[in-house]
Amino acid sequence: MIERLAKRTQGISPFYVMELLHRAKQLEAQGKDIIHMEIGEPDFATPQAVVEAGIKHLKTGDVKYTSAAGLPELREKISTYYQKHYSVTVDKKRIFVTPGASGAFLLALGASLNPAEELLMADPCYPCNSNFVKFFDGKARTIPVDATSRYQLTAAHIKQHWTKATKGVLVASPSNPTGTIVTPQQLEQAIHTVNKLGGCFYSDEIYHGLVYGENAPTALEFSDNVFVINSFSKYFGMTGWRVGWLIVPEEFIDATEKLAQNIFIATATHSQYAALAAFEESTLAELEQRRAEFGARRDFLYNALLRVGFEIPIKPDGAFYIYANCSKFTDDSYQFALDLLEAEGVAITPGKDFGNNEANHYVRFAYTTSIDRMAIAMQRLERFINKG
Amino acid sequence: MIERLAKRTQGISPFYVMELLHRAKQLEAQGKDIIHMEIGEPDFATPQAVVEAGIKHLKTGDVKYTSAAGLPELREKISTYYQKHYSVTVDKKRIFVTPGASGAFLLALGASLNPAEELLMADPCYPCNSNFVKFFDGKARTIPVDATSRYQLTAAHIKQHWTKATKGVLVASPSNPTGTIVTPQQLEQAIHTVNKLGGCFYSDEIYHGLVYGENAPTALEFSDNVFVINSFSKYFGMTGWRVGWLIVPEEFIDATEKLAQNIFIATATHSQYAALAAFEESTLAELEQRRAEFGARRDFLYNALLRVGFEIPIKPDGAFYIYANCSKFTDDSYQFALDLLEAEGVAITPGKDFGNNEANHYVRFAYTTSIDRMAIAMQRLERFINKG
Repeated sequence: MIERLAKRTQGISPFYVMELLHRAKQLEAQGKDIIHMEIGEPDFATPQAVVEAGIKHLKTGDVKYTSAAGLPELREKISTYYQKHYSVTVDKKRIFVTPGASGAFLLALGASLNPAEELLMADPCYPCNSNFVKFFDGKARTIPVDATSRYQLTAAHIKQHWTKATKGVLVASPSNPTGTIVTPQQLEQAIHTVNKLGGCFYSDEIYHGLVYGENAPTALEFSDNVFVINSFSKYFGMTGWRVGWLIVPEEFIDATEKLAQNIFIATATHSQYAALAAFEESTLAELEQRRAEFGARRDFLYNALLRVGFEIPIKPDGAFYIYANCSKFTDDSYQFALDLLEAEGVAITPGKDFGNNEANHYVRFAYTTSIDRMAIAMQRLERFINKG
Repeated sequence: MIERLAKRTQGISPFYVMELLHRAKQLEAQGKDIIHMEIGEPDFATPQAVVEAGIKHLKTGDVKYTSAAGLPELREKISTYYQKHYSVTVDKKRIFVTPGASGAFLLALGASLNPAEELLMADPCYPCNSNFVKFFDGKARTIPVDATSRYQLTAAHIKQHWTKATKGVLVASPSNPTGTIVTPQQLEQAIHTVNKLGGCFYSDEIYHGLVYGENAPTALEFSDNVFVINSFSKYFGMTGWRVGWLIVPEEFIDATEKLAQNIFIATATHSQYAALAAFEESTLAELEQRRAEFGARRDFLYNALLRVGFEIPIKPDGAFYIYANCSKFTDDSYQFALDLLEAEGVAITPGKDFGNNEANHYVRFAYTTSIDRMAIAMQRLERFINKG
């Protein structure tokens, strides 16, 4: 008998948080107030100039395919953005506009990863990152990391874990779920190590811009021989528009172009036109205000969680997450999250969505809701813990 | 040394027509009038009600992720559409909204095809269809077909070519490039043959609605145990919006859901809201007018090409293509297309974009331009041939 389900579907995990979300919706339907701190999506609306640019394009009625690599003027603007914000020069031929960072991962790994080949990545990490590897029948070798390396892979990790089956290394900075960024020195050393080994370096930079101290370095500051994955979703507030970008090493341009033609045709046209407005000065000013608000939220939540008794091994630098150790209260963080939702209507994400590295002792709080709402959540959380 | 490019990138062909398009743009930049008969995209604008629904949603500014499987109300409307137009009942749980038919192929094959497994498909066929198989490191076994089976795979083909490595069969109806539809009997027999063999049946129905005689049957009329790929791009005139759908057999629902969460997060939100308006009566009435216009174009082009001396082994039933035999004029249809473009500014697609089956004797004409423009193209074509 033919086994009809593809083998890769067994390795790919569902998001455990979906069960929580499902239950949260049921509770909401019953009239219960749920505070959502599980959501990896900014609560701010898309900037007005971006929305207006989208509407303006739709009004032409002319929503045809763009070229597979994206609108030339958008690729140009992305290149200019790198020049202005990072002082790096990126040939726009290396830039591909994609259906979100998801599309960028599909192209980057599609162009470079064979079945059975391994990528090294940190544990904890965002589950999709390892699942993309499995999507191509590759192996995600997740390496336990902790606060001593800012939850990031270092050159030492890479040297230690590199085998004949290793194809490359994925670094995500700021990290989801820990919010930590890789330091410039760490990043430079990691890239040079991978380049010496002859592998591929993938830099997931989708939370760039959402940092509240030092800026996160881009891999492009240290080498052109890297894949960089980024998106308009997070900092630019364009989640539902599904538009991101991928930068590839020169030798991958032709293969990436072929793949993009075949697996996407093109990214949504109106989303691309809208994204052109994301780089306007007035939009960037608005986004900087939001960043300040996220920074204030981080500080509020960080202090509140410490006060309630969570351990946070390292203060997060960016994204909108705090990965908190709850071992003082439980050895089963998933059950903890379920019980917290049931008892107090606060939704958070269990550690096991991010790997196996002490996952039962961690939960992720997203500060994608207002400080006022988070303040109520903290009261509820405290009550829940004191009862337990 | 590590071979960094993934092996799959070697098997995936670029679109040869892209070179023609590139040259066409150069010629246009020089002021030359080019008649585009190479483009697989309706020349009509998106229906007004759809555009307005998109704008209405954008005005809310609330363009957040939808659930991975798509807006529940859109899945519901798609289900209702099947009931009304095909009299088949499709549980909306089996319906996934996707970023175009491209996304539907990624999910369907991602959920079912392992590396080295084979899919049977017709030659000629749309190049992406075989390239999707290669994207998953599978093998596209293309089977030469001709007018005797309406350029479609039959149960006899399937039985003859099925091996231990075969995972399933892909049928595209109406076909690109031939425009032929599979008859209900052919389709039923093909599906039953595959079901008996225990494999997967994939039905590419993206040109449904664009038929000018008999309606094309959906695979769902004969079995629930099929994958159906469809899209809002062609009949509904929504190419650049990137929204399509996939229907899966019940046993694939969970795996497809997991994959969709991981490789897309979701389809563009405003595109999904816009697509809700695609099923309104007024929109459907507008689309039926367009269909009549496409039908008239088909008849015009079919007769004109025969008159000029092309052979068309079977009159196409749908889509917006005519696959014409040019062996009377050349044994190199690619060069023929290049020369025609250079000499007369008429752009068409060479047969080799669609496979190896006598591809050097065929070219594809798309009637995605007005009859007036096609009339000029036919004069130019005749002049070109008479010179040659």
